[in-house]
Amino acid sequence: MFIIGELINGMYANIGRAIKEKNKAIVQKCALEQVNSGADALDVNCGPASHNPLSDIQWLIETIQEVTDKPLALDSSKIEVIESGLKVIKNKPIINSTTADSQKLEKLIPLAKKYQAKLIGLTISSKGIPQNKDQRLELAALIIAACIDHDFSVEDLYLDPIVLPVNVAQAQMKDILESIKEFKIISEPCPKTIVGLSNVSQGTNTRSLINRTFLVMAIANGLDAAILDPLDSELIDAAITADLILNKQIYCNSYLQAYRKK
Amino acid sequence: MFIIGELINGMYANIGRAIKEKNKAIVQKCALEQVNSGADALDVNCGPASHNPLSDIQWLIETIQEVTDKPLALDSSKIEVIESGLKVIKNKPIINSTTADSQKLEKLIPLAKKYQAKLIGLTISSKGIPQNKDQRLELAALIIAACIDHDFSVEDLYLDPIVLPVNVAQAQMKDILESIKEFKIISEPCPKTIVGLSNVSQGTNTRSLINRTFLVMAIANGLDAAILDPLDSELIDAAITADLILNKQIYCNSYLQAYRKK
Repeated sequence: MFIIGELINGMYANIGRAIKEKNKAIVQKCALEQVNSGADALDVNCGPASHNPLSDIQWLIETIQEVTDKPLALDSSKIEVIESGLKVIKNKPIINSTTADSQKLEKLIPLAKKYQAKLIGLTISSKGIPQNKDQRLELAALIIAACIDHDFSVEDLYLDPIVLPVNVAQAQMKDILESIKEFKIISEPCPKTIVGLSNVSQGTNTRSLINRTFLVMAIANGLDAAILDPLDSELIDAAITADLILNKQIYCNSYLQAYRKK
Repeated sequence: MFIIGELINGMYANIGRAIKEKNKAIVQKCALEQVNSGADALDVNCGPASHNPLSDIQWLIETIQEVTDKPLALDSSKIEVIESGLKVIKNKPIINSTTADSQKLEKLIPLAKKYQAKLIGLTISSKGIPQNKDQRLELAALIIAACIDHDFSVEDLYLDPIVLPVNVAQAQMKDILESIKEFKIISEPCPKTIVGLSNVSQGTNTRSLINRTFLVMAIANGLDAAILDPLDSELIDAAITADLILNKQIYCNSYLQAYRKK
């Protein structure tokens, strides 16, 4: 499992304040804590309150790059914010994200190619959130077709089925899980799959339990990556153990520690 | 998830001693603890040290039936022990288990019909433990064919893929999980699926974590039932939450408590 830490996001009070006050220490502490807890990459989002997102994202990236060389996922719904971030990023970046709308695909896929970035594709469009598996697969096929048209490697595409909260869309959960498996058979070579995990437990009383249970079910369906809170050690333990069961890392008695030190 | 509690087994010291001393209180306490923790049925096994298994299993069943009317799974590799237990059982019993060997199928399927029992079929034979998914499916097909030959409802058959310890058969885990899904497509109506869970973590240092992670992955693959330790509350929480995500019970904020009170 490729783990992308979600905590550097201006919507969280500490990071929002750090961006406002240009307090590097807070951001760098948050970056290192996530990396030391098992994050393979870090999501970077200025948050909704940023007045200068084009410069704020550059400040965040440069601040993080002072303490870690992990890949960064540039998280914005605005193409110009992503492009601004790409200009200062050092390692192979991740674009988070495009939708299945052609005006986004036509701009973000060429950007991903130019910067040799991985691309997260949300199976959502301006028509709204998909309501079933077929709609998810249709949007996935649109995104994959656009990648092929632009000669962008589908193996660098991470398709996201859009995880909804279990307490409002319980009947859709099975479809979301099955979409993860079926995205893989749309094309050869196959795309990778990703979820933004935390949304699944929004508004519930047992967030960590629902998060880790859904994540393990998604891994059983072939999930490749997740954006999540790596400081939730029970969540990371569950992800490592699911990978162990799928034979993705070798068993040893101290496999949890071995994985974190990898 | 249909949960069968595994703790009434003579191989455990407290139950072994209780059988020897005919101490009803210990057995009844163990039965009620499991039921109160969420067990839908109870496994009953005299254990390897029993000198009089034909009478010991009857004593266990009668002792348990004094305090609960949950279904009981008669657990023995000896047909005559299962038959002895069937004679005194009150509710619809579960036979645990037949293998895919014809001499067992030819005796146990008629017994299951006679006593209106559910039947657990292990995908194993006298030739040994299956080494891959194809061998599991072949043995499953043999068991299903025998059920059809005897006009025994396949819906009352629980196929077990034989769960091996992750630390000795790590490369087989994926096949075992996929077998659970594929057993369902061998016949229409489809059989049910079951695992003896605890074996997956034998000899490891993180038994509860491995047990609950494997169980959630198996539920994601369509598992119907498991024989497990219902006193492991984190395990039961995980099973309930996986069922919730698959929309098998309605969400409410206190869904964990609601499920246990069902």
